[in-house]
Formats: sequence, C-alpha cells, structure tokens
Amino acid sequence: MTDAKAAHAGLARWHAYMENGSDPALLAALLAEDAVFHSPVVHTPQVGKRVVMAYLVAASHVLGNESFRYVRELVDGNEMMLEFVTELDGTHINGVDIIRFNEAGMISDFKVMVRPLKAINKVWEMMAAQLQAGVAALPR
Amino acid sequence: MTDAKAAHAGLARWHAYMENGSDPALLAALLAEDAVFHSPVVHTPQVGKRVVMAYLVAASHVLGNESFRYVRELVDGNEMMLEFVTELDGTHINGVDIIRFNEAGMISDFKVMVRPLKAINKVWEMMAAQLQAGVAALPR
Repeated sequence: MTDAKAAHAGLARWHAYMENGSDPALLAALLAEDAVFHSPVVHTPQVGKRVVMAYLVAASHVLGNESFRYVRELVDGNEMMLEFVTELDGTHINGVDIIRFNEAGMISDFKVMVRPLKAINKVWEMMAAQLQAGVAALPR
Repeated sequence: MTDAKAAHAGLARWHAYMENGSDPALLAALLAEDAVFHSPVVHTPQVGKRVVMAYLVAASHVLGNESFRYVRELVDGNEMMLEFVTELDGTHINGVDIIRFNEAGMISDFKVMVRPLKAINKVWEMMAAQLQAGVAALPR
C-alpha cells in the first residue's frame, strides 16, 4: 500500500470514529505511539499517544455536539485538512483538523486551529475543564 | 484549462506576490470581484474585492516580516491550504491560508486561521491598527 492509500484508509477510519459516538477504542487504534498534537490554544506540541488521546477525547466532548459537521476536506497524499463548523452555547465555531498519517495509516500528527477569536476563547474555557477530568482518568 | 490547472496557475501567482514584496498591483490582479475574506478574528465574512484587498494588504504588513515562511502546502483541485509560521515581537505565530480559486484561476475565497491563543490576540491587536489606516487609504 502506498502512503497515500494508507492515509486514505486512515481517513475513512477517522470518519468512522467521528460518526460512531467517538468511541475511544476506535481512536486508540488510529493513533501512532509517537503521535503529536498541536492545540489551537497552546504553542507547545503535546507528544505521545496517551496525551494525544486525552486532548482528542476532550475535544470530542467539547466540540462533538449535534451541530458539529465537516464542511470541507482537502486531501493531498498522506495529509488532510478537514474543516468543521459547530456551535457552543450560541457561539459559532469554525475550525480545521490538519492530520498527517504515517506509512501504516496511523495518525502521526494532529493540529487544530479555530476561528474566530470568540470561538477560540470559548473552546479554551471548555477544554480546560474537560482536560483536567480527562487526563486524570486515563490509565497510566 | 481545467479548474485545477487554473488554480495551480493562481497558486503560482500567489507565491510570486508573496515573494516579491507583496506588491498590491499583483494582488489586485489575483482577486475575483466577488472575493470573500474570512478573518481569523471576526465571524462575519468580508465580501468584495476592495475589502478583501484591504485585509490582505494589512495582513502582509502585520505578518510579512523576515521570519515569515510557508511550511506546508496541501493542494486538492481548486482549493489550497498553505500553512505558515512567523514571529511577532517574540510571539510564535502559526496559521493557515485556505484559498479557493475560481475557474479563471482568480481567488474567490480566502480564509485565515491562527494559533495559538497568544498569537491570535497579537495578530488582532496589530491588524486593527493596520486596517484603520489601510481601508481609509484605499480608493473608493
């Protein structure tokens, strides 16, 4: 399988994860051990499957309500940009997931950006609470 | 010319604009009359070539210093995502230009997102000053 084919298979699995109630077991099976997460809020990258899991699970709790939907998808080789919109307490959220897959079709790099400013402030506030609960609950 | 070919030609012209001192005349020749700009800060889209020019010229003044560089490019048909990094007064800025080209290879939609939170606050502060000067200076 080429890198691009592995990445396309990985993307299909990501969509399956998102469309099936964000089951953490599906997510765990998609993340490379050395995966890196780049938050929309904090500069420093978060390194390693365990901490990337924590961020993505928190994000799915914060952003993944009934108004969440992907509206644009750019696919270029093993890299993808998925643009989403959602609403949180009346605040319009527009963002992108920029995902890089490795040669095995596992997510090796996941970056999130959000606009506008009001949205990033809202996401920050809600993520902080989720992360405190989520990181503590993860098995060591 | 297919839409994708026209878009590739448009992308080459965008890079020429960025690499040649951001000459507003080059930019004007690249923007569709009905172009739309989506700011990283404000939710409401900005519609029309004149106002899109104002935003992009202001952005080039704020972001386009000697540390600005594109670090990743995703191309999918007539849509592109260009990821950039730069530094403003010691603040790391990481962002994306998401550009849609029309069938004539002109920019019809331009969206910017920036991370982390500290960067978006910095960009907001500096863009506000540039826009006040820039919009006032543009011919009506």
